[in-house]
This record gives sequence, structure tokens and C-alpha cells, in this order.
Amino acid sequence: MVQKSRVQNIFSNCDPVPDAIILKNASDAYFDKTFLYVTNLTQGLFEGCGAVLFPDGEIHLLVTSLEYDLAREASTNISTYETTKEFFERLQCLTSSCKTIGVPFQKMVYSDVLFVMKYIHHASFQDVSEACTSARMKKDTEEVYRIQKACTISDRVMEKIPQFVQKGMTESDLSAEIDYHLQKYGAQSNAFETISSFGKHTALPHYSHGGSVLQQGDLIICDFGARVDQYNSDITRTFVYGKATDLQKRIHQTVLKAQNAGLQAICPGVIAKQVHQKVSEVISSSEFANRFIHATGHSLGLYVHDNGIGLNAHCTLPLEEGMVLTVEPGIYVPTVGGVRIEDDILVTSNGYNCLTKSTKDLIEI
Amino acid sequence: MVQKSRVQNIFSNCDPVPDAIILKNASDAYFDKTFLYVTNLTQGLFEGCGAVLFPDGEIHLLVTSLEYDLAREASTNISTYETTKEFFERLQCLTSSCKTIGVPFQKMVYSDVLFVMKYIHHASFQDVSEACTSARMKKDTEEVYRIQKACTISDRVMEKIPQFVQKGMTESDLSAEIDYHLQKYGAQSNAFETISSFGKHTALPHYSHGGSVLQQGDLIICDFGARVDQYNSDITRTFVYGKATDLQKRIHQTVLKAQNAGLQAICPGVIAKQVHQKVSEVISSSEFANRFIHATGHSLGLYVHDNGIGLNAHCTLPLEEGMVLTVEPGIYVPTVGGVRIEDDILVTSNGYNCLTKSTKDLIEI
Repeated sequence: MVQKSRVQNIFSNCDPVPDAIILKNASDAYFDKTFLYVTNLTQGLFEGCGAVLFPDGEIHLLVTSLEYDLAREASTNISTYETTKEFFERLQCLTSSCKTIGVPFQKMVYSDVLFVMKYIHHASFQDVSEACTSARMKKDTEEVYRIQKACTISDRVMEKIPQFVQKGMTESDLSAEIDYHLQKYGAQSNAFETISSFGKHTALPHYSHGGSVLQQGDLIICDFGARVDQYNSDITRTFVYGKATDLQKRIHQTVLKAQNAGLQAICPGVIAKQVHQKVSEVISSSEFANRFIHATGHSLGLYVHDNGIGLNAHCTLPLEEGMVLTVEPGIYVPTVGGVRIEDDILVTSNGYNCLTKSTKDLIEI
Repeated sequence: MVQKSRVQNIFSNCDPVPDAIILKNASDAYFDKTFLYVTNLTQGLFEGCGAVLFPDGEIHLLVTSLEYDLAREASTNISTYETTKEFFERLQCLTSSCKTIGVPFQKMVYSDVLFVMKYIHHASFQDVSEACTSARMKKDTEEVYRIQKACTISDRVMEKIPQFVQKGMTESDLSAEIDYHLQKYGAQSNAFETISSFGKHTALPHYSHGGSVLQQGDLIICDFGARVDQYNSDITRTFVYGKATDLQKRIHQTVLKAQNAGLQAICPGVIAKQVHQKVSEVISSSEFANRFIHATGHSLGLYVHDNGIGLNAHCTLPLEEGMVLTVEPGIYVPTVGGVRIEDDILVTSNGYNCLTKSTKDLIEI
């Protein structure tokens, strides 16, 4: 059963191995997706809910009665609780024989950790954030399958962009088309707030979309993903509305060359920051030096930014078979605009498979 | 300036008043929306970014260079940082003269609080989660304006549902239509993963949508919201595909009656749990006793579940003018289905204004 092997995977990344691991979601967005990893659940809100994991792979879920029917899909032990007090008392009971307990300090809010420590005063605690992250860095078959499905959907939508673009449309009109088609093609939702920026806004990497109307000659950045059974894709392509200028073409060609340099470097054993260096070298030796202002890529999975390993200037972790990463260089020229090209890749035994397939040409619309 | 008054609002809810308050977002979804409240920003990702607030209303933002241009919209002091170490060193410098520092323990992850305490070892710390929540419970004019805009958009979409529903469609097809129109009518995104459940799935309050195909006689629950400039709406209506059965009509009428009982009870000074009691009484004295399995409502704002006050069995806080709450009773009959009706209301000096206006009839499609 996938749940059991995932729990064991987390424990195998712990040093020392604790007697149990406690997960607890806080309210709204403060949701530890390791909860979804170990349960393999695809539906439910699970605010405030938690889980106790044991080294033999056993899981015990603590959920509100409201989530009970959805939680049953995880085919594991489930307790329901009504109040926070009941939650922690149940936790206390489940861990009564445990001397050492793991808690992901990076994914549980401070007040909840204090509560856990107050109720379970007989045990000592250790941070298992890294163990959870490490376990989730390399994807299992089921995870790759879901990410590939998400990539295929976002590819289908990306190929439709030239049909979506209309004279007089706003950035928000375009994001509405993108999100609509992501769902029509089978995504549960977009993976994150879709970026569909026009003109000078393309020079702001984290700008999403607004009321700006498309102008002749604008660069258009489309950066979006599909979420399928909780797993995400993340793809970016850049278009031009009208005929591309020489400057726009040179920016695009430099980004493409930089991405290729990064992709060629990907292989198990290569240090993450070396990939970023390869990408950066291409851009810094071009006329667009200093215009690449973010990391080359990030781990992708249950979170769009799945932590653990990143293709950036600092990460000294080696790439390993089974990791899924984005490779997304960009060049941003204030007032002119930006170009970004992003693909999702799976590290294989001797290189990588590109999970996203859309054309990377600078398409004139 | 709205930013200054909001910061002062948070400090006025602190007891004792600290010399400074530190906010810090973690990665991805672990985002403290008090950061958006005090900055009034509408765009940006701000992962890992933070802010230092001072009692006179001053704000100092700490952002990555990637977010600098977006952060400038907040018209306040900004520092950029490259590494986590730089972030905390800057924090240390900004608070060097502070003896007492507030931190929202419920919105910062454990490891970040440990870092703050390690770097700022000269100060004592207090939890300001409640102060942030209290400050944000009563909405100011700008906040109500944004929520009303979000409500108007979701109303427009709700009125279109009968046109969206087609023979042979799946739940996901319907959610795609809903999300598309939310954006077309001006939302930056949906407020949360849209619920469009059919038939027996309507009996699961937190089920969102899947591949189920609409069947003659199905109940349809549509529960969704618009996000506008970071503020949310949240509305639910129930429809029937075909002619409603007597049982479906009785469920619907009971929910409507329960909602009315709740709405009639809303007035400043009324204790939150009394509203829930009024609602519960109607259902428990009906043939559907024990089929109302969640709270009556929640606070609404930057988070869909905005904390602080809730219309549930336990909350002893009094309603106050300026609060925005949902009122959303439901009845869930396993195998038959569920009915939920949800509106967003603003507590006024002598009662409430309903911000959502869609018809509450059980519409047969």
C-alpha cells in the first residue's frame, strides 16, 4: 500500500528514528501537505486535523466528523474529535508509549507545537521537517503519474493560447480562459494564481494579472499549472502580440539558450547549484547580464514550490533519480518586458525526461 | 493612510503593547495574511518575506529583490535581502532598541519563531495572534468595499448557474464554468476550490468536485467565492436537476427557515453561539434532527475562514458592527444528498446588511 511505504520513507530519512511523528494542520492555508502525501487523499479540507505516524508504516488520522467520510478513502485508522482539547487528548493517548516524537517544525505553527509539547510532556521532540521534505523530494510512481497528467493538461492549454488571445482583452480575460480550460481538460483547479501578464508587467516575475489591456507589440508571459489529484504542474511560455522586435527575439533566444544549458547539465549526482550556474553563465555573458533575477528552478509536487532542493545559487544537494524540478530561466528588462521559459523535468538514471512538451518558439499572435 | 491606521489598530488590541511586532511568511501556502492587511498590497507572492511594525503605525518591509517593485505599492520603508541570514540580521538591526516584541504564534511556523528568538535574544516575546485577529475582525471601509465587490461578482455567477447546467456534464465541468465567469466578471481568482457537487456528493460538505456526471433528480450544491484585491466572498445555493421531490423541498425549506432564524438573531452585542443555537434549534426540531453537522458561519476577509469569531456552538464573543460573517446552515442526508444556503453579511449598528443577494429559491433546472 502506497500510504505505508510513504510513512516508512519518512522514517527512513529520520536520524535518529523517533517512536512516532505528529502532523497537524492549522487553519485555512496553513496546511502541511505531508498529510496528503501519507494519506494519498485527493479531496477534503482537513483544517486543524492531524495524523500520528509510526515507524512500521501505520497511520492514525485525527479528523473532525465533517471530514470523516472523505478521510475513509485513506483506508487507515481514524479518530474524530470535536474540540481542540479532545484533539490533543487523543494525541496524548496515541503516543503514550513513545519516548521520542518527530514534529515538522517548519510546517507546524508555533502555538500548535507548544500545545503538542504541553500535552505530551513525557516525550522528547525532534524536528522532522527535513525528513518529510527528503522523503517527498523523490517521487514514487503514483506521484509521477499524477504530475505527468497535470503537465499534459497544461500543455494542452498552452497550445491553445494563440486562439485565446483577442484584440482588446485584459490580462484577467486571458487568465480566465487559461483556468477554464485547465479545468475542462481535467484539472481539479489551477496549481496557483495564473500569471498572464502583458507588456511592461512581464518584467515583474511575480505579477499575476490585472486589468491591463493588450497592446500591439506586447510580450505576453503565461505561467500556470494544473492541479490533478493534489499534484501540480508549472509551465511558462512567452508570446508576442504582433511582430516580434529584434530585441524581443534576442531576449527570447538568450533565455532558450540558457534553458538548454541548464537542461543539458541535469543528471543524477550533479549538484543543484551547478545547474543554476550553467544557466546564469549564458545570461551573464550576453547583453542581458544582471537581468536574470531569480532561481533557475524548484522542486515540484504537492506544493508548487516543493522545497528540499532548488536549482539556485546556494543549493549544494545532488540531483537524484525520481526528482521532479522546474527549469525556468527568465530575462527581465524594465519598461521593455520579460521572457521566461519553464519546463518540468523528471530526473532519470542517465539524464532527464521533460514532462512538458509545448513548443518553445516565440510565437507571434 | 490606511496602512498606518491598520498597524495602530493591531497595537491597540495588544495588552501589554509591545515595542514592535514581527511578521514573517514561510514558504508557499504558509502565508500570514496580516502582511496583506498592513500593507494593503494586492499583488505578489512574498514567500519568506516579513515586516516589522511599530506602535506609531510605521511599517518596515523585508522582501527579496524579486518582490521589490511590487512591494513599493505599499508606500513604506523596504529593505531587500538575499539569504535567510541577511533577513534575520536586518530584523535584529531594526528591533535593536526594542525590549518587548510581538509575534503571531498561530501564524508563524515553529522554526521561524525559534530563529527570531535566537537572533533577537535581547528582547522578550509575546503572542499577538489574537491582537492581529481582533484587529482584522471588524472591517474598515476599504475592506468592506472589496468584499462587497467580491460578493457582487459571485452573485452574478450564481444567477447564471441554470444556464451553465447541461445534460451529461460533470461536476468539474460546472466548476470550470463557475471559475471562468468569476474571473470574467472581475475576480482575481476564485476564493477557494469551488464546490460543485452532484447527487450523493452533496451530502459531503467538504467535497469539492470530480468526474461524476449529472443525473436526473440530483441535488446540486454550488459553494464558491470571488477573490477581489485579496478579499473574498463565499456563497452557497442548492439546485435540483429536474423536478424536486417532496423530500428535497422539505430539506430546502428547513434550511431556509434555519438561515432566517440565524439572520434575525444578528445584531451587535449578540453572542456568536446564540446565532448558531437559533439555527440549530430549527433543524433539531424538524424531521432532519442531527443532519446539521457543521458550524453556522465564519468570519470572512483576507482568509475565507478569517478566524477570531465564528457562529458555532462554542464561540462566546459578541457580534460587533463592521464584522463580516457567513450564515450557512445545511442539512445532509447520506445517500439522498444535502442542501446548504450561505450568505455573507455585514453587522451594522442595528442589525445586518446582506452583501450577497442571489435568490434562495430551490431552482429546478
